[in-house]
Amino acid sequence: MLKEKLSRRDIILGAGKFAVVGAGIAAVSGGLSLFSKAEAKGPQTLPWPYEKLDTEEVARIAYDGWYKAFCSYGVASGILIPLQKKIGEPYTMLPVEGLRLGEGGIVGWGTICGSLLGATVALGFVAPYDVGKQILNEMLNWYGNEKLPIFTPEKPKAEVKVTSISNSPLCHVSVNKWCQKAGKAFGSPERKDRCARLTADVAVQTVKFLNDWKDGKFKSTQKFPPAMYATTSQHNCGECHTSKVPEVIR
Amino acid sequence: MLKEKLSRRDIILGAGKFAVVGAGIAAVSGGLSLFSKAEAKGPQTLPWPYEKLDTEEVARIAYDGWYKAFCSYGVASGILIPLQKKIGEPYTMLPVEGLRLGEGGIVGWGTICGSLLGATVALGFVAPYDVGKQILNEMLNWYGNEKLPIFTPEKPKAEVKVTSISNSPLCHVSVNKWCQKAGKAFGSPERKDRCARLTADVAVQTVKFLNDWKDGKFKSTQKFPPAMYATTSQHNCGECHTSKVPEVIR
Repeated sequence: MLKEKLSRRDIILGAGKFAVVGAGIAAVSGGLSLFSKAEAKGPQTLPWPYEKLDTEEVARIAYDGWYKAFCSYGVASGILIPLQKKIGEPYTMLPVEGLRLGEGGIVGWGTICGSLLGATVALGFVAPYDVGKQILNEMLNWYGNEKLPIFTPEKPKAEVKVTSISNSPLCHVSVNKWCQKAGKAFGSPERKDRCARLTADVAVQTVKFLNDWKDGKFKSTQKFPPAMYATTSQHNCGECHTSKVPEVIR
Repeated sequence: MLKEKLSRRDIILGAGKFAVVGAGIAAVSGGLSLFSKAEAKGPQTLPWPYEKLDTEEVARIAYDGWYKAFCSYGVASGILIPLQKKIGEPYTMLPVEGLRLGEGGIVGWGTICGSLLGATVALGFVAPYDVGKQILNEMLNWYGNEKLPIFTPEKPKAEVKVTSISNSPLCHVSVNKWCQKAGKAFGSPERKDRCARLTADVAVQTVKFLNDWKDGKFKSTQKFPPAMYATTSQHNCGECHTSKVPEVIR
Protein backbone atom coordinates (compact mmCIF):
# COMPACT_ATOMS: atom_id res chain seq x y z
CA MET A 1 0.00 0.00 0.00
CA LEU A 2 3.01 2.27 0.30
CA LYS A 3 5.21 3.63 -2.37
CA GLU A 4 8.55 5.25 -1.83
CA LYS A 5 7.60 8.75 -2.76
CA LEU A 6 4.49 10.37 -4.18
CA SER A 7 6.00 13.15 -6.21
CA ARG A 8 4.48 16.56 -6.68
CA ARG A 9 4.31 15.69 -10.39
CA ASP A 10 2.34 12.46 -9.73
CA ILE A 11 -0.05 14.46 -7.65
CA ILE A 12 -0.56 17.19 -10.23
CA LEU A 13 -0.98 14.61 -13.00
CA GLY A 14 -3.72 13.03 -10.93
CA ALA A 15 -5.58 16.29 -10.60
CA GLY A 16 -7.67 16.12 -13.77
CA LYS A 17 -8.91 12.66 -12.99
CA PHE A 18 -10.10 13.62 -9.58
CA ALA A 19 -11.41 17.04 -10.31
CA VAL A 20 -14.79 15.32 -9.99
CA VAL A 21 -14.13 14.97 -6.26
CA GLY A 22 -13.61 18.68 -5.92
CA ALA A 23 -16.54 19.40 -8.19
CA GLY A 24 -18.67 17.09 -6.08
CA ILE A 25 -17.77 19.02 -2.98
CA ALA A 26 -18.46 22.32 -4.70
CA ALA A 27 -21.84 21.06 -5.85
CA VAL A 28 -22.85 19.85 -2.40
CA SER A 29 -21.70 22.98 -0.65
CA GLY A 30 -22.13 25.59 -3.36
CA GLY A 31 -23.23 29.19 -3.09
CA LEU A 32 -26.75 29.23 -1.75
CA SER A 33 -27.75 28.41 1.78
CA LEU A 34 -28.66 24.80 2.41
CA PHE A 35 -30.91 25.85 5.22
CA SER A 36 -34.58 26.71 5.20
CA LYS A 37 -35.80 30.29 5.47
CA ALA A 38 -37.58 29.37 8.70
CA GLU A 39 -34.17 28.77 10.25
CA ALA A 40 -32.75 31.93 8.70
CA LYS A 41 -33.99 35.02 10.51
CA GLY A 42 -32.38 37.63 12.76
CA PRO A 43 -28.76 36.82 13.59
CA GLN A 44 -29.25 33.47 11.86
CA THR A 45 -29.13 35.24 8.48
CA LEU A 46 -25.65 34.87 7.09
CA PRO A 47 -23.40 36.52 6.21
CA TRP A 48 -23.57 39.26 8.81
CA PRO A 49 -23.06 42.79 7.44
CA TYR A 50 -19.45 43.75 6.79
CA GLU A 51 -17.82 47.16 6.62
CA LYS A 52 -14.20 47.66 5.67
CA LEU A 53 -11.90 47.68 8.69
CA ASP A 54 -8.77 49.64 9.51
CA THR A 55 -5.91 47.12 9.48
CA GLU A 56 -3.91 49.09 12.06
CA GLU A 57 -6.75 48.82 14.58
CA VAL A 58 -7.19 45.14 13.69
CA ALA A 59 -3.49 44.44 14.28
CA ARG A 60 -3.48 46.24 17.62
CA ILE A 61 -6.52 44.40 18.96
CA ALA A 62 -5.26 41.03 17.73
CA TYR A 63 -1.80 41.56 19.24
CA ASP A 64 -3.24 42.63 22.60
CA GLY A 65 -5.77 39.80 22.29
CA TRP A 66 -2.98 37.22 22.25
CA TYR A 67 -1.83 38.44 25.67
CA LYS A 68 -5.41 38.16 26.95
CA ALA A 69 -6.29 34.72 25.60
CA PHE A 70 -3.83 33.62 22.91
CA CYS A 71 -3.97 33.10 19.17
CA SER A 72 -7.46 31.93 18.30
CA TYR A 73 -9.12 34.59 20.45
CA GLY A 74 -6.58 37.13 19.20
CA VAL A 75 -7.58 36.84 15.55
CA ALA A 76 -11.28 36.46 16.27
CA SER A 77 -11.20 39.59 18.44
CA GLY A 78 -9.12 41.54 15.91
CA ILE A 79 -11.84 41.02 13.30
CA LEU A 80 -15.02 40.83 15.37
CA ILE A 81 -14.49 43.53 18.03
CA PRO A 82 -14.13 46.33 15.43
CA LEU A 83 -17.31 45.00 13.81
CA GLN A 84 -19.08 45.01 17.17
CA LYS A 85 -18.11 48.70 17.45
CA LYS A 86 -18.96 49.63 13.85
CA ILE A 87 -22.09 47.58 13.27
CA GLY A 88 -23.38 46.47 16.69
CA GLU A 89 -25.86 43.61 16.42
CA PRO A 90 -25.59 40.79 15.48
CA TYR A 91 -21.86 40.98 16.26
CA THR A 92 -22.50 42.12 19.83
CA MET A 93 -24.47 38.90 20.42
CA LEU A 94 -21.38 36.78 19.81
CA PRO A 95 -19.17 36.26 22.88
CA VAL A 96 -15.76 36.39 21.21
CA GLU A 97 -14.24 35.15 24.48
CA GLY A 98 -15.79 31.77 23.61
CA LEU A 99 -13.36 31.40 20.72
CA ARG A 100 -10.29 30.84 22.90
CA LEU A 101 -10.02 27.07 22.80
CA GLY A 102 -8.11 26.99 19.51
CA GLU A 103 -5.08 28.16 21.53
CA GLY A 104 -1.81 26.38 20.73
CA GLY A 105 -3.32 24.38 17.88
CA ILE A 106 -6.33 23.42 20.08
CA VAL A 107 -5.50 23.36 23.79
CA GLY A 108 -1.79 22.85 23.12
CA TRP A 109 -1.96 19.94 20.68
CA GLY A 110 -0.16 21.85 17.94
CA THR A 111 -2.67 21.08 15.15
CA ILE A 112 -4.02 23.99 13.05
CA CYS A 113 -2.43 27.29 14.09
CA GLY A 114 -4.99 28.80 16.44
CA SER A 115 -4.80 32.12 14.63
CA LEU A 116 -6.16 30.37 11.51
CA LEU A 117 -8.87 28.72 13.60
CA GLY A 118 -9.91 32.16 14.80
CA ALA A 119 -9.99 33.36 11.20
CA THR A 120 -12.04 30.30 10.19
CA VAL A 121 -14.75 31.03 12.74
CA ALA A 122 -14.83 34.79 12.07
CA LEU A 123 -15.04 34.27 8.29
CA GLY A 124 -17.95 31.89 8.80
CA PHE A 125 -20.05 34.77 10.11
CA VAL A 126 -18.63 37.66 8.08
CA ALA A 127 -18.30 36.28 4.54
CA PRO A 128 -20.71 34.42 2.27
CA TYR A 129 -19.83 30.72 2.46
CA ASP A 130 -18.10 30.44 -0.93
CA VAL A 131 -16.11 33.64 -0.35
CA GLY A 132 -15.08 32.55 3.15
CA LYS A 133 -13.96 29.23 1.72
CA GLN A 134 -11.82 30.90 -0.94
CA ILE A 135 -10.37 33.41 1.52
CA LEU A 136 -9.39 30.56 3.86
CA ASN A 137 -7.78 28.64 0.99
CA GLU A 138 -5.74 31.77 0.23
CA MET A 139 -5.00 32.32 3.92
CA LEU A 140 -3.61 28.81 4.47
CA ASN A 141 -1.37 29.23 1.39
CA TRP A 142 -0.29 32.69 2.50
CA TYR A 143 0.43 31.51 6.06
CA GLY A 144 2.74 28.74 4.86
CA ASN A 145 4.66 30.83 2.34
CA GLU A 146 5.14 34.12 4.18
CA LYS A 147 8.07 35.20 6.36
CA LEU A 148 6.35 35.75 9.70
CA PRO A 149 5.93 37.69 11.88
CA ILE A 150 5.54 40.96 9.94
CA PHE A 151 3.80 43.20 12.50
CA THR A 152 5.83 45.42 14.81
CA PRO A 153 3.82 46.57 17.82
CA GLU A 154 4.16 50.11 19.10
CA LYS A 155 5.15 48.84 22.54
CA PRO A 156 6.58 45.36 21.99
CA LYS A 157 6.64 43.07 25.02
CA ALA A 158 9.79 41.36 23.71
CA GLU A 159 12.31 41.80 20.92
CA VAL A 160 11.60 39.63 17.88
CA LYS A 161 14.27 39.89 15.20
CA VAL A 162 13.87 36.53 13.45
CA THR A 163 11.24 35.68 10.85
CA SER A 164 10.57 32.19 9.51
CA ILE A 165 8.56 30.42 6.82
CA SER A 166 6.42 27.58 8.18
CA ASN A 167 5.55 25.72 4.95
CA SER A 168 2.60 24.45 6.94
CA PRO A 169 -0.59 25.74 8.58
CA LEU A 170 0.11 23.60 11.67
CA CYS A 171 0.94 25.29 14.97
CA HIS A 172 3.77 23.04 16.15
CA VAL A 173 5.52 23.16 12.77
CA SER A 174 5.21 26.94 12.55
CA VAL A 175 6.24 27.56 16.16
CA ASN A 176 9.16 25.15 16.20
CA LYS A 177 10.63 26.33 12.90
CA TRP A 178 10.71 29.81 14.37
CA CYS A 179 12.14 28.54 17.69
CA GLN A 180 14.88 26.60 15.87
CA LYS A 181 15.85 29.60 13.76
CA ALA A 182 15.74 32.06 16.64
CA GLY A 183 17.32 29.69 19.17
CA LYS A 184 14.53 30.48 21.61
CA ALA A 185 12.44 28.12 23.73
CA PHE A 186 8.66 27.75 23.53
CA GLY A 187 8.41 29.29 27.00
CA SER A 188 10.53 32.36 26.12
CA PRO A 189 9.10 35.91 26.02
CA GLU A 190 10.39 36.16 22.43
CA ARG A 191 8.42 33.12 21.25
CA LYS A 192 5.31 34.46 22.93
CA ASP A 193 5.72 37.84 21.27
CA ARG A 194 6.40 36.13 17.93
CA CYS A 195 3.03 34.37 18.24
CA ALA A 196 1.30 37.59 19.31
CA ARG A 197 2.72 39.41 16.26
CA LEU A 198 1.80 36.52 13.96
CA THR A 199 -1.71 36.67 15.40
CA ALA A 200 -1.85 40.32 14.30
CA ASP A 201 -0.54 39.30 10.86
CA VAL A 202 -3.22 36.65 10.34
CA ALA A 203 -5.99 39.01 11.44
CA VAL A 204 -4.68 41.75 9.13
CA GLN A 205 -4.32 39.46 6.11
CA THR A 206 -7.83 38.09 6.63
CA VAL A 207 -9.16 41.64 6.81
CA LYS A 208 -7.21 42.64 3.68
CA PHE A 209 -8.98 39.86 1.79
CA LEU A 210 -12.32 40.90 3.29
CA ASN A 211 -11.73 44.55 2.42
CA ASP A 212 -10.82 43.53 -1.15
CA TRP A 213 -13.98 41.44 -1.36
CA LYS A 214 -16.05 44.39 -0.10
CA ASP A 215 -14.48 46.50 -2.88
CA GLY A 216 -15.25 43.79 -5.47
CA LYS A 217 -11.53 43.16 -5.93
CA PHE A 218 -11.03 39.79 -4.24
CA LYS A 219 -10.02 37.03 -6.63
CA SER A 220 -8.94 33.47 -5.89
CA THR A 221 -7.61 31.13 -8.54
CA GLN A 222 -6.29 28.47 -6.15
CA LYS A 223 -7.87 25.04 -6.34
CA PHE A 224 -8.91 23.32 -3.14
CA PRO A 225 -6.62 20.43 -2.14
CA PRO A 226 -9.21 17.62 -2.57
CA ALA A 227 -9.66 18.66 -6.22
CA MET A 228 -5.91 18.20 -6.75
CA TYR A 229 -4.95 15.21 -4.62
CA ALA A 230 -8.10 13.06 -4.28
CA THR A 231 -7.82 13.54 -0.52
CA THR A 232 -7.71 16.33 2.02
CA SER A 233 -4.10 17.45 2.20
CA GLN A 234 -1.54 20.20 2.42
CA HIS A 235 0.27 20.80 -0.86
CA ASN A 236 3.61 19.56 0.43
CA CYS A 237 3.19 15.95 1.62
CA GLY A 238 6.98 15.51 1.83
CA GLU A 239 7.10 18.16 4.58
CA CYS A 240 6.06 15.53 7.14
CA HIS A 241 6.25 12.25 5.22
CA THR A 242 10.02 12.37 4.89
CA SER A 243 10.66 8.82 3.69
CA LYS A 244 7.41 7.25 2.56
CA VAL A 245 4.22 8.92 1.45
CA PRO A 246 1.36 6.42 1.67
CA GLU A 247 -0.34 6.02 -1.69
CA VAL A 248 -3.79 7.57 -1.92
CA ILE A 249 -6.53 5.10 -2.82
CA ARG A 250 -8.04 6.14 -6.15
CA MET B 1 19.78 20.76 15.54
CA LEU B 2 18.38 17.33 14.77
CA LYS B 3 18.72 14.12 16.70
CA GLU B 4 17.80 10.72 15.40
CA LYS B 5 14.81 10.05 17.58
CA LEU B 6 13.19 11.84 20.48
CA SER B 7 11.82 8.87 22.38
CA ARG B 8 8.61 8.82 24.34
CA ARG B 9 10.80 8.21 27.43
CA ASP B 10 12.91 11.33 26.77
CA ILE B 11 9.76 13.31 26.42
CA ILE B 12 8.17 12.04 29.60
CA LEU B 13 11.43 12.53 31.51
CA GLY B 14 11.45 16.12 30.38
CA ALA B 15 7.96 16.69 31.67
CA GLY B 16 8.82 17.71 35.23
CA LYS B 17 11.32 20.25 34.09
CA PHE B 18 8.85 21.98 31.84
CA ALA B 19 5.78 21.74 33.97
CA VAL B 20 6.41 25.44 34.51
CA VAL B 21 5.40 26.04 30.89
CA GLY B 22 2.07 24.35 31.43
CA ALA B 23 1.65 26.03 34.79
CA GLY B 24 2.38 29.35 33.12
CA ILE B 25 -0.33 28.75 30.59
CA ALA B 26 -2.78 27.69 33.29
CA ALA B 27 -1.99 30.80 35.29
CA VAL B 28 -2.51 33.11 32.34
CA SER B 29 -5.72 31.47 31.26
CA GLY B 30 -7.09 30.13 34.53
CA GLY B 31 -10.69 29.84 35.70
CA LEU B 32 -12.13 33.31 35.89
CA SER B 33 -12.99 35.51 32.96
CA LEU B 34 -10.23 37.79 31.77
CA PHE B 35 -12.82 40.22 30.51
CA SER B 36 -14.49 43.10 32.24
CA LYS B 37 -18.06 42.93 33.50
CA ALA B 38 -18.96 45.73 31.13
CA GLU B 39 -18.20 43.36 28.25
CA ALA B 40 -20.01 40.50 29.95
CA LYS B 41 -23.77 40.92 29.72
CA GLY B 42 -26.53 39.15 27.81
CA PRO B 43 -25.23 36.52 25.40
CA GLN B 44 -21.71 37.73 26.18
CA THR B 45 -21.90 36.03 29.58
CA LEU B 46 -20.15 32.69 29.29
CA PRO B 47 -20.70 29.83 29.65
CA TRP B 48 -24.20 29.68 28.22
CA PRO B 49 -26.65 27.55 30.22
CA TYR B 50 -26.35 23.81 29.62
CA GLU B 51 -28.90 21.05 30.09
CA LYS B 52 -28.06 17.39 29.62
CA LEU B 53 -28.70 16.20 26.07
CA ASP B 54 -29.98 12.93 24.66
CA THR B 55 -27.04 11.32 22.86
CA GLU B 56 -29.32 9.54 20.36
CA GLU B 57 -30.77 12.86 19.20
CA VAL B 58 -27.27 14.38 19.13
CA ALA B 59 -25.97 11.53 16.96
CA ARG B 60 -28.89 11.77 14.53
CA ILE B 61 -28.54 15.54 14.05
CA ALA B 62 -24.75 15.33 13.68
CA TYR B 63 -24.97 12.49 11.13
CA ASP B 64 -27.61 14.32 9.07
CA GLY B 65 -25.61 17.52 9.54
CA TRP B 66 -22.63 15.99 7.75
CA TYR B 67 -24.77 15.50 4.65
CA LYS B 68 -25.91 19.12 4.88
CA ALA B 69 -22.54 20.80 5.44
CA PHE B 70 -19.90 18.28 6.51
CA CYS B 71 -18.00 17.55 9.70
CA SER B 72 -17.48 20.85 11.51
CA TYR B 73 -21.10 21.93 11.03
CA GLY B 74 -22.22 18.38 11.82
CA VAL B 75 -20.76 18.34 15.32
CA ALA B 76 -21.63 21.97 16.05
CA SER B 77 -25.24 21.34 15.00
CA GLY B 78 -25.45 18.04 16.94
CA ILE B 79 -24.61 19.92 20.14
CA LEU B 80 -26.06 23.39 19.55
CA ILE B 81 -29.37 22.66 17.77
CA PRO B 82 -30.74 20.56 20.67
CA LEU B 83 -29.69 23.41 22.99
CA GLN B 84 -31.49 25.92 20.74
CA LYS B 85 -34.62 23.78 21.16
CA LYS B 86 -34.23 23.15 24.91
CA ILE B 87 -32.95 26.53 26.06
CA GLY B 88 -33.64 29.05 23.27
CA GLU B 89 -31.62 32.24 23.69
CA PRO B 90 -28.68 32.77 23.63
CA TYR B 91 -28.24 29.62 21.51
CA THR B 92 -30.80 30.77 18.96
CA MET B 93 -28.69 33.88 18.34
CA LEU B 94 -25.82 31.76 17.04
CA PRO B 95 -26.02 30.86 13.34
CA VAL B 96 -24.63 27.33 13.48
CA GLU B 97 -24.45 27.37 9.67
CA GLY B 98 -21.50 29.76 10.09
CA LEU B 99 -19.42 26.94 11.57
CA ARG B 100 -19.05 25.05 8.28
CA LEU B 101 -15.60 26.18 7.21
CA GLY B 102 -13.75 23.59 9.31
CA GLU B 103 -14.84 21.04 6.68
CA GLY B 104 -12.15 18.58 5.59
CA GLY B 105 -9.62 19.87 8.12
CA ILE B 106 -10.37 23.52 7.10
CA VAL B 107 -11.60 23.84 3.50
CA GLY B 108 -9.97 20.55 2.49
CA TRP B 109 -6.47 21.11 3.87
CA GLY B 110 -6.63 18.03 6.10
CA THR B 111 -5.45 19.75 9.30
CA ILE B 112 -7.52 19.30 12.49
CA CYS B 113 -10.47 16.94 11.88
CA GLY B 114 -13.38 19.30 11.25
CA SER B 115 -15.54 17.39 13.71
CA LEU B 116 -13.08 18.36 16.47
CA LEU B 117 -13.13 21.97 15.26
CA GLY B 118 -16.91 21.93 15.58
CA ALA B 119 -16.56 20.55 19.11
CA THR B 120 -13.96 23.22 19.94
CA VAL B 121 -16.30 26.06 19.00
CA ALA B 122 -19.37 24.54 20.65
CA LEU B 123 -17.47 23.86 23.90
CA GLY B 124 -16.29 27.48 23.94
CA PHE B 125 -19.86 28.62 24.43
CA VAL B 126 -21.26 25.71 26.46
CA ALA B 127 -18.57 24.94 29.03
CA PRO B 128 -16.62 27.12 31.47
CA TYR B 129 -13.21 27.78 29.91
CA ASP B 130 -11.20 25.39 32.11
CA VAL B 131 -13.75 22.61 31.70
CA GLY B 132 -13.92 23.08 27.93
CA LYS B 133 -10.14 22.93 27.79
CA GLN B 134 -10.03 19.69 29.75
CA ILE B 135 -12.86 18.15 27.73
CA LEU B 136 -11.02 19.00 24.49
CA ASN B 137 -7.80 17.49 25.83
CA GLU B 138 -9.75 14.30 26.57
CA MET B 139 -11.53 14.49 23.19
CA LEU B 140 -8.30 14.70 21.18
CA ASN B 141 -6.90 11.72 23.11
CA TRP B 142 -10.12 9.77 22.68
CA TYR B 143 -10.31 10.57 18.96
CA GLY B 144 -6.81 9.23 18.31
CA ASN B 145 -7.19 6.03 20.34
CA GLU B 146 -10.70 4.89 19.46
CA LYS B 147 -11.80 2.52 16.71
CA LEU B 148 -14.03 4.78 14.62
CA PRO B 149 -16.72 5.04 13.43
CA ILE B 150 -18.92 3.62 16.20
CA PHE B 151 -22.37 5.05 15.29
CA THR B 152 -24.74 3.06 13.08
CA PRO B 153 -27.45 5.25 11.57
CA GLU B 154 -31.01 4.01 11.31
CA LYS B 155 -31.02 4.55 7.55
CA PRO B 156 -27.35 4.43 6.48
CA LYS B 157 -26.52 6.07 3.17
CA ALA B 158 -23.69 3.56 2.58
CA GLU B 159 -22.36 0.39 4.15
CA VAL B 160 -19.41 0.99 6.50
CA LYS B 161 -17.91 -2.23 7.85
CA VAL B 162 -14.36 -1.12 8.59
CA THR B 163 -13.22 0.80 11.67
CA SER B 164 -9.77 2.31 12.13
CA ILE B 165 -7.64 4.00 14.78
CA SER B 166 -6.20 7.32 13.63
CA ASN B 167 -3.49 7.88 16.28
CA SER B 168 -3.88 11.53 15.34
CA PRO B 169 -6.47 14.33 15.53
CA LEU B 170 -5.61 15.38 11.96
CA CYS B 171 -8.22 14.95 9.22
CA HIS B 172 -6.00 13.60 6.44
CA VAL B 173 -4.32 11.06 8.74
CA SER B 174 -7.66 9.86 10.12
CA VAL B 175 -9.39 9.73 6.72
CA ASN B 176 -6.56 8.06 4.85
CA LYS B 177 -5.91 5.39 7.49
CA TRP B 178 -9.56 4.44 7.15
CA CYS B 179 -9.40 4.58 3.33
CA GLN B 180 -6.29 2.36 3.30
CA LYS B 181 -7.86 -0.21 5.61
CA ALA B 182 -11.21 -0.22 3.81
CA GLY B 183 -9.73 -0.04 0.31
CA LYS B 184 -12.07 2.84 -0.49
CA ALA B 185 -11.35 6.16 -2.19
CA PHE B 186 -11.88 9.59 -0.62
CA GLY B 187 -14.68 10.20 -3.14
CA SER B 188 -16.52 6.94 -2.34
CA PRO B 189 -19.96 6.87 -0.67
CA GLU B 190 -18.45 4.61 2.01
CA ARG B 191 -15.78 7.17 2.98
CA LYS B 192 -18.40 9.89 3.11
CA ASP B 193 -20.63 7.80 5.36
CA ARG B 194 -17.62 6.90 7.53
CA CYS B 195 -17.03 10.63 8.08
CA ALA B 196 -20.72 11.26 8.74
CA ARG B 197 -20.77 8.46 11.35
CA LEU B 198 -17.52 9.71 12.93
CA THR B 199 -19.10 13.17 13.09
CA ALA B 200 -21.93 11.62 15.13
CA ASP B 201 -19.33 9.88 17.33
CA VAL B 202 -17.45 13.09 18.10
CA ALA B 203 -20.66 14.98 18.90
CA VAL B 204 -21.84 12.15 21.17
CA GLN B 205 -18.53 11.83 23.02
CA THR B 206 -18.40 15.59 23.58
CA VAL B 207 -21.94 15.50 24.96
CA LYS B 208 -21.11 12.52 27.19
CA PHE B 209 -18.34 14.59 28.76
CA LEU B 210 -20.68 17.59 29.06
CA ASN B 211 -23.42 15.46 30.62
CA ASP B 212 -20.88 14.03 33.10
CA TRP B 213 -19.73 17.53 33.94
CA LYS B 214 -23.35 18.62 34.50
CA ASP B 215 -23.71 15.66 36.89
CA GLY B 216 -20.49 16.64 38.69
CA LYS B 217 -18.83 13.45 37.46
CA PHE B 218 -16.38 14.74 34.82
CA LYS B 219 -12.75 14.22 35.74
CA SER B 220 -9.65 14.77 33.66
CA THR B 221 -6.21 13.70 34.80
CA GLN B 222 -4.47 14.21 31.43
CA LYS B 223 -1.77 16.83 31.28
CA PHE B 224 -1.75 19.30 28.40
CA PRO B 225 0.97 18.63 25.82
CA PRO B 226 3.00 21.84 26.43
CA ALA B 227 3.39 20.82 30.09
CA MET B 228 4.93 17.53 28.93
CA TYR B 229 6.97 18.40 25.86
CA ALA B 230 7.96 22.07 26.20
CA THR B 231 6.13 22.72 22.93
CA THR B 232 2.68 22.31 21.46
CA SER B 233 2.51 18.73 20.19
CA GLN B 234 0.63 15.51 19.73
CA HIS B 235 1.83 12.75 22.08
CA ASN B 236 3.25 10.62 19.27
CA CYS B 237 5.87 12.66 17.40
CA GLY B 238 7.11 9.55 15.59
CA GLU B 239 3.72 9.22 13.89
CA CYS B 240 4.76 11.84 11.32
CA HIS B 241 8.48 12.35 12.00
CA THR B 242 9.40 8.87 10.83
CA SER B 243 13.17 9.26 10.65
CA LYS B 244 14.21 12.38 12.51
CA VAL B 245 12.40 14.31 15.19
CA PRO B 246 13.84 17.82 15.42
CA GLU B 247 15.08 18.55 18.90
CA VAL B 248 12.96 20.98 20.90
CA ILE B 249 14.84 24.07 22.09
CA ARG B 250 14.89 24.05 25.89
